[in-house]
Amino acid sequence: MEKKERKPVYYSEYLQLDKILNAQEPESNKEGIRADDEMLFIIIHQAYELWFKQILHELEVVRGIFKQPNIHNNTPDIYNTVHRLERVSRILEVAVGQMAVLETMTPLDFLDFRDLLRPASGFQSIQFKMIEATLGLAFEQRHAKNYYLTQLNEADVALVKKAESEESLLVLINRWLERMPFIKDPSYWHEAEGANFWATYRKAYEESLQDAERSNLETFDLLFMNDGSYPAERRFSPDANRNALFIMLYRDYPMLHLPYELLDTLLEIDELLSMWRHRHIHMVQRTIGKRVGTGGSSGADYLRAAADSHYIFKELAELTSFLLPRHLLPKLPDTLIKSLGYH
Amino acid sequence: MEKKERKPVYYSEYLQLDKILNAQEPESNKEGIRADDEMLFIIIHQAYELWFKQILHELEVVRGIFKQPNIHNNTPDIYNTVHRLERVSRILEVAVGQMAVLETMTPLDFLDFRDLLRPASGFQSIQFKMIEATLGLAFEQRHAKNYYLTQLNEADVALVKKAESEESLLVLINRWLERMPFIKDPSYWHEAEGANFWATYRKAYEESLQDAERSNLETFDLLFMNDGSYPAERRFSPDANRNALFIMLYRDYPMLHLPYELLDTLLEIDELLSMWRHRHIHMVQRTIGKRVGTGGSSGADYLRAAADSHYIFKELAELTSFLLPRHLLPKLPDTLIKSLGYH
Amino acid sequence: MEKKERKPVYYSEYLQLDKILNAQEPESNKEGIRADDEMLFIIIHQAYELWFKQILHELEVVRGIFKQPNIHNNTPDIYNTVHRLERVSRILEVAVGQMAVLETMTPLDFLDFRDLLRPASGFQSIQFKMIEATLGLAFEQRHAKNYYLTQLNEADVALVKKAESEESLLVLINRWLERMPFIKDPSYWHEAEGANFWATYRKAYEESLQDAERSNLETFDLLFMNDGSYPAERRFSPDANRNALFIMLYRDYPMLHLPYELLDTLLEIDELLSMWRHRHIHMVQRTIGKRVGTGGSSGADYLRAAADSHYIFKELAELTSFLLPRHLLPKLPDTLIKSLGYH
Amino acid sequence: MEKKERKPVYYSEYLQLDKILNAQEPESNKEGIRADDEMLFIIIHQAYELWFKQILHELEVVRGIFKQPNIHNNTPDIYNTVHRLERVSRILEVAVGQMAVLETMTPLDFLDFRDLLRPASGFQSIQFKMIEATLGLAFEQRHAKNYYLTQLNEADVALVKKAESEESLLVLINRWLERMPFIKDPSYWHEAEGANFWATYRKAYEESLQDAERSNLETFDLLFMNDGSYPAERRFSPDANRNALFIMLYRDYPMLHLPYELLDTLLEIDELLSMWRHRHIHMVQRTIGKRVGTGGSSGADYLRAAADSHYIFKELAELTSFLLPRHLLPKLPDTLIKSLGYH
Repeated sequence: MEKKERKPVYYSEYLQLDKILNAQEPESNKEGIRADDEMLFIIIHQAYELWFKQILHELEVVRGIFKQPNIHNNTPDIYNTVHRLERVSRILEVAVGQMAVLETMTPLDFLDFRDLLRPASGFQSIQFKMIEATLGLAFEQRHAKNYYLTQLNEADVALVKKAESEESLLVLINRWLERMPFIKDPSYWHEAEGANFWATYRKAYEESLQDAERSNLETFDLLFMNDGSYPAERRFSPDANRNALFIMLYRDYPMLHLPYELLDTLLEIDELLSMWRHRHIHMVQRTIGKRVGTGGSSGADYLRAAADSHYIFKELAELTSFLLPRHLLPKLPDTLIKSLGYH
Repeated sequence: MEKKERKPVYYSEYLQLDKILNAQEPESNKEGIRADDEMLFIIIHQAYELWFKQILHELEVVRGIFKQPNIHNNTPDIYNTVHRLERVSRILEVAVGQMAVLETMTPLDFLDFRDLLRPASGFQSIQFKMIEATLGLAFEQRHAKNYYLTQLNEADVALVKKAESEESLLVLINRWLERMPFIKDPSYWHEAEGANFWATYRKAYEESLQDAERSNLETFDLLFMNDGSYPAERRFSPDANRNALFIMLYRDYPMLHLPYELLDTLLEIDELLSMWRHRHIHMVQRTIGKRVGTGGSSGADYLRAAADSHYIFKELAELTSFLLPRHLLPKLPDTLIKSLGYH
Repeated sequence: MEKKERKPVYYSEYLQLDKILNAQEPESNKEGIRADDEMLFIIIHQAYELWFKQILHELEVVRGIFKQPNIHNNTPDIYNTVHRLERVSRILEVAVGQMAVLETMTPLDFLDFRDLLRPASGFQSIQFKMIEATLGLAFEQRHAKNYYLTQLNEADVALVKKAESEESLLVLINRWLERMPFIKDPSYWHEAEGANFWATYRKAYEESLQDAERSNLETFDLLFMNDGSYPAERRFSPDANRNALFIMLYRDYPMLHLPYELLDTLLEIDELLSMWRHRHIHMVQRTIGKRVGTGGSSGADYLRAAADSHYIFKELAELTSFLLPRHLLPKLPDTLIKSLGYH
Repeated sequence: MEKKERKPVYYSEYLQLDKILNAQEPESNKEGIRADDEMLFIIIHQAYELWFKQILHELEVVRGIFKQPNIHNNTPDIYNTVHRLERVSRILEVAVGQMAVLETMTPLDFLDFRDLLRPASGFQSIQFKMIEATLGLAFEQRHAKNYYLTQLNEADVALVKKAESEESLLVLINRWLERMPFIKDPSYWHEAEGANFWATYRKAYEESLQDAERSNLETFDLLFMNDGSYPAERRFSPDANRNALFIMLYRDYPMLHLPYELLDTLLEIDELLSMWRHRHIHMVQRTIGKRVGTGGSSGADYLRAAADSHYIFKELAELTSFLLPRHLLPKLPDTLIKSLGYH
């Protein structure tokens, strides 16, 4: 770092404020209509897009880490991914909170310029769709799929398709979970406490069920005891399920602290995306009611459907149903405990 | 105020901290089980109940104001109601934010004492049900009605029944809207711009509709042009609808500033209650998954159904669909404009 | 609005995302150094600058309103200014909350690229200085004045100077307060309750003082009873002080509702700017400690001094010391009461 | 856990709502004065006290862990302390946010009942003082010490004294840092990279200093190179300083992840306490201005002094000044690296 020879950096140049602050041209100005709130409408969407870019940046770093064939425990890799995904959470919290600013725009003030925006629509935010795809939303899961193919221009469809074609974080996490050694240790898998760990766990789980919960056992078998047919639409494999549940159950052992935080943060991101959609729905309803959105969509309905179906790590979230209290957990064999700890 | 003769007030006595801070007896302590998080579970619910009491207090003051046969414009009455309902919003924001503290309790930590709480359940919060009823939720609208009759003890059912039997804020607001003089002024109602105001407005509205929105016109007629049969389940009358829409359209005139803020704040309260339920749902899902709730309910399902059906001022929210941009609004007659202003 | 003939609007073009999303060039990239967090550093500052632009936009609209020679009560002008200043508050809340994202950048991660940024500094944010100047911060009040003349380039100094040379919101508000008719009504000024209003009020105020507060009376006389010499550094005149206090005391009368909200919102903006500085100070301390800032300033010290001395509406805030409880307020004459109400 | 035989738990009994919801007796009611906002004043303070109890509960658990003569790396102890201290942060965020509710009480509304509360004061919150003492605030550091001895009743003084007499978290953390083995490993202490680690580090640090930062070196020597006289008022010893800085520098190694999070969370708690005080100051200023507080204190002045002097982990925060960028850090010997990793 040759400090002396570098050109001095100036704040506004470093941030390229000539671009950033000259990118607001209200349509109402062009039409000679006074609509003081259009500036807000433009700027808040630009602020969202900046944050979306940052989220994509963080997800790229995280994916880069998980793409490695192996993640050694003694590197800061997992620590780094947890840190970055927690940052994504903090950004999404800002995104949710920011909605309060848009809510200061009343319906009547929006109507002053709304017609001028047609057929543009927030639905056309490519970066948001790329975030969903990068996290793991598959094209098949998308609500209003066809619509999305007709609404976006070709270049934008290509960008989303490209994001969908790459290995998503979900796929990489599934593979990382599958690679975990714990369930492969025979002394653990077959003989924990003198018996097969999962058989023991299944028994304890069965005993813990209330009458109204009996059907959970069937799902238990599907997810964890499975060595036969497995539903194609499931995105986490039985191996991954077992290791994920194992992490949730034994997160008190040092080596599982961070993997647990990682899984927890993924669920938090899903929750925040959902909160963002719900807050967005309310804002749309309060602003345009049952009017058709500027892009021609049925306004809030699209968002509501997405809020219900665009959960990405849903299968991980469902594992919570299969936890047992600590005092009912099978004790792990000493060799395994040792390998979960520090030197 | 005879300052000299009053007994000096002491902080902890004034706040009755002997009661407040000695009201936490974890069930796990009684059982000799270590469950450090039960204290949090108790305290956060007590904090919620304190805030619910405060919300009920504010709603009582607001109802007291609206119960008057007449509200004179030159009293601070409406100003006061807006102020208090905005405070309710601030409290609900705290209630939503507070969920972040409960989310620090992991599923496994909850399992340490969860079974000890059966069959208690947050569903048994009487104050929350009283808030819903006081705002205007009718017994018929409640999700899981029967359940609620079996789950609560008799005294508590009586309390909710009592709240449901009183005139709710919704009923009082409907009546207040109906009393508004604007639509009764003949020069306005019949002859604004040389024609009946609503006929003029309807025409402009019709012209503004996109093809996909044609069916809105039918609802328009039902809500605003109605002098015949009217659906029994609708809780705001045509008179109230007309005045509410009028307020939303002409809120720029001084006398309508505060009525507009009032309606807007009611919608904000609905939104915050909905956010609270959604955040609550996520928290429950993350904590117990598809397990049956401690009270025997299907956990998150109850909350989800309530989040969808317990909108109280829904009919007011829907009026947004019938707004027109300012430049299309019928001009008001001068006499009416004058009566909407200051001396 | 000729909807049919307008060119269709496309989201990314409308928002000029080609500019917004291509304005991030980390210095570390140029040097071939890996510093994953520099992107965050750039983007969060750009998001701040977008919000600063929006704040300046709102303040321009508000100033435009107050620049009118007269503001008629029956226009939506004051309502509009309150609405826009409350939006500025919401934006500042986002600005404060956003700091939580920057706090995810650890000191060590910042050190990876910090040296590359010299001598750039957040101190060089022209828009932030323009906000301060537009609100009413005078050049003389600025902490580190000389520093600011040497640190910025000429064009930027000119921009701040220009903002400082225009009539600030503070100046306009002072004039608006001075124009208020209340204290000019002879029946009120001289004969409220059979005596001069201010003499009556002063007497009641004096009686309300605790021993330790006696010196408040001197300030009372300076601010409200003044018809002689008045400190040059005071920016609100005695006429403005009297009317501002009057608004605070009698805000329950309809015509004073919005003026009260206006004054309250100005204080809230000051508070939020202060919170922003304090949060910023902590962030700087946590990140660089007692190191010299990239711009050469003594890091957190500048911010701390600004946080203490850059209060803009401080004189309005101080008026709170001179309130009396409602039951001790002089009753207003009926003619005045009438003129504070609706038709 | 004999589920069958336990008495069924009922929500309102479990939470002892008969106590919680019957602990509000406004003084204004007793005097027959209408002051609708006193209920808010009582309830928000009770909510604060509930949260303070929870914070004390968490700090007790954390202190219990650190009181152990030794903390083995393979227990969940440190993980648990980080988790609990992060919860304290979340609670303090709620406490800060909650201030927004109190700010809805206008000065005039407070004046309706303020005189009735004398001489009670928030200063008398024993639990808050116990939190400060438990974290590590020494009696000597307290602002307005004498005042506090006269203002509280005897039982309350005894409670604070007791808290001050116990080993605070700060003392325990200092001892935990001193116990760390790293700086005792001779190959590390004397011979990292062929030389004494601290001599090497000092040299690199010296080279990194800007001219204006030269005096930092003196402090460096005092804190880290010290084997002679050491200022009595410093609460972290040179051994503790060295290990704390070491943790901050090498937090990328697995065994230091959690210790780093722990130190970071302590600084966050200090920051949030400071934010709480600042927000509190503003609220007090907005409400009573320069009036004397109900307890006789100079209102906001006490809080401001406390905000400046009651930083508890200040010495840890200052260590940031002595960090170096990763690329300048001395490489650790392999044996040490190995002992910082997993099996």
